[in-house]
Amino acid sequence: MSIQSFIPKQRTLMGPGPSDVSPQVLSALSRPTIGHLDPLFVGMMDEVKSLLQYAFQTTNPFTIALSAPGSAGMEACFVNLVTPDDTVVVCVNGVFGVRMTENVKRLGAKLVVVEGEWGRAVDPQALEKVLQENPSANFVSFVHAETSTGALSDAKTLCEIARKHDCLTIVDAVTSLGGVELRVDDWGIDAIYSGSQKCLSCVPGISPISFSERATEIVKNRTHPVPSWFLDQSLVMAYWSGEGKRAYHHTAPVNSLYALHESLLMLKNEGLENSWARHKAQHQALAKGLASLGLEFIVPEEERLPQLNAVHIPEGVDDVKVRSYLLNEYNLEIGAGLGAFAGKAWRIGLMGYAARSENVALCVSALKDALQK
Amino acid sequence: MSIQSFIPKQRTLMGPGPSDVSPQVLSALSRPTIGHLDPLFVGMMDEVKSLLQYAFQTTNPFTIALSAPGSAGMEACFVNLVTPDDTVVVCVNGVFGVRMTENVKRLGAKLVVVEGEWGRAVDPQALEKVLQENPSANFVSFVHAETSTGALSDAKTLCEIARKHDCLTIVDAVTSLGGVELRVDDWGIDAIYSGSQKCLSCVPGISPISFSERATEIVKNRTHPVPSWFLDQSLVMAYWSGEGKRAYHHTAPVNSLYALHESLLMLKNEGLENSWARHKAQHQALAKGLASLGLEFIVPEEERLPQLNAVHIPEGVDDVKVRSYLLNEYNLEIGAGLGAFAGKAWRIGLMGYAARSENVALCVSALKDALQK
Repeated sequence: MSIQSFIPKQRTLMGPGPSDVSPQVLSALSRPTIGHLDPLFVGMMDEVKSLLQYAFQTTNPFTIALSAPGSAGMEACFVNLVTPDDTVVVCVNGVFGVRMTENVKRLGAKLVVVEGEWGRAVDPQALEKVLQENPSANFVSFVHAETSTGALSDAKTLCEIARKHDCLTIVDAVTSLGGVELRVDDWGIDAIYSGSQKCLSCVPGISPISFSERATEIVKNRTHPVPSWFLDQSLVMAYWSGEGKRAYHHTAPVNSLYALHESLLMLKNEGLENSWARHKAQHQALAKGLASLGLEFIVPEEERLPQLNAVHIPEGVDDVKVRSYLLNEYNLEIGAGLGAFAGKAWRIGLMGYAARSENVALCVSALKDALQK
Repeated sequence: MSIQSFIPKQRTLMGPGPSDVSPQVLSALSRPTIGHLDPLFVGMMDEVKSLLQYAFQTTNPFTIALSAPGSAGMEACFVNLVTPDDTVVVCVNGVFGVRMTENVKRLGAKLVVVEGEWGRAVDPQALEKVLQENPSANFVSFVHAETSTGALSDAKTLCEIARKHDCLTIVDAVTSLGGVELRVDDWGIDAIYSGSQKCLSCVPGISPISFSERATEIVKNRTHPVPSWFLDQSLVMAYWSGEGKRAYHHTAPVNSLYALHESLLMLKNEGLENSWARHKAQHQALAKGLASLGLEFIVPEEERLPQLNAVHIPEGVDDVKVRSYLLNEYNLEIGAGLGAFAGKAWRIGLMGYAARSENVALCVSALKDALQK
């Protein structure tokens, strides 16, 4: 096999992630690599922490960028906080809720599932009922923005219910961070994780996470070690700590963190509220265009994520053929259905840098062409 | 805090990693992000697999790039292969051997340590003795190139001994891959992991791993799930599989894999043996220069790693002052001591793209200046 340098095509990324990465972020990514213990780099890590606190709307000192993808961020939250003695309530309304149950099972904790409908928000009353029936529950976890269905859950209300029942909350914000309202401190979220490649429009491979003081205390007071050495946040805390000497843990993904720094800076310069409004406005334009093509959303209007638009594939239309046509003729990527929606839905992302008028226009026109073939 | 775009200085990286990254690799890194399920990307992943097989000198079908740093690669080997019923012999002659014992402990397996001297190769006779005394042992693990001390162990002989005692081998090749002779198939290594940021001179954050057929069978035949969902290679295998439909697991670090592809291609174009010879030649030039400054190696000559040169800090010389001077005056990074050698040694890397005459010349001259201050 003769292998040459890999020169990708310039795609427009409107799937469920990775999303379009701006030239500004790609430029930051390719700056010269420096040492991960270089004082310049340590200073940059402190800035990343501060920028992440802004994005999460938190003052949590333990707010870092994990050196692995969002699914490792999920696992980091569970393995550091949950022990076999705990009872974890997981709200399931899509693929990533199911993945949470997998984490709980592997930890040997007691699992209680709030079964929700795929394509709908988590039902707060269903959570309330389950918590009343399970007084031993001490954790509640749910997905804020279900990437598999495009449903947005009411994180604020779910956290209120959890807190009333004296449960800590573990929240998946992989697709929500930067795209819809999210206020970690105001809503009382205890552990949250996200991904770099969704509404932050950074390259994939990094997972921002943040733990409340309550969650941090649990990590510090554990009596037996976290099953994973790599994800043990008591060790990672010392690596990300600005206080005194930085303890070596692993080698940070230096260049990816340059890119994350730049993408978070772009978010800060735009302003969080402005970013949320932009996602909403582009979503409305896209929804109008999709309606004109006769495409129907899976999620009811008031529960829809602006940044992930899941629509039913019309009867008689060939899923793979349409997506291949868009990719080959227009260099446009939209997402396939996942889990229960595999082959039945398309997921059209408007995340971060991809939430622009030109992308909406391209997507609607190209889909129109594809559907007429 | 007013935050600006982060513009790092152009450093010369001669520490224990990350090593200098070539402009060619940085250029690949910043190519436009495409989807991780894009057929173009899937094709590139197949090429990465083939290039990694060359670098590892293996035909193992399970040869992939893990989406996390080398320490996660280490953990992936242990959590997928070792269960609480197993007895694991770990040869310890530095920090990364100690880290292996931490992995075994967290898994609840029986741990037997071959205590070695820091700064020396693992003693094959000591391993033989321990295996004779522990007939229940079924795994042997050791570090091929100890990054904390600069010692090179005889992986071929250690694997022979392990196999004679019917043990599978788990080998740390984080610093050895690409820098010294390493032949996974010829030496009968069962599980091996490395890092992107050492002699491959790629950006940090990726861990190449490879499992033999024997190891792969263990993963496939496990009766209870791996404790880590993210590191469960039975799921990752389906993601990296070229056969049929690629199963979604997580989002691969797309751009970092562009860079790994390019760095592996550079290695292939140079030729593995040529790369090993280059590291050796540059090491000899550096050793001569260091001797002229009166600096003494920690490791005896025949056990030295060419790509990591650990020397004693002379009596009366201020470690931090010298390293800061090199960084501030020459933009040159050398490494501090680690573990037992903290404050007592410098670690001078000659890894991958950093193993060049100009780097050796700069390092010797700059160190001479720093020591005269």
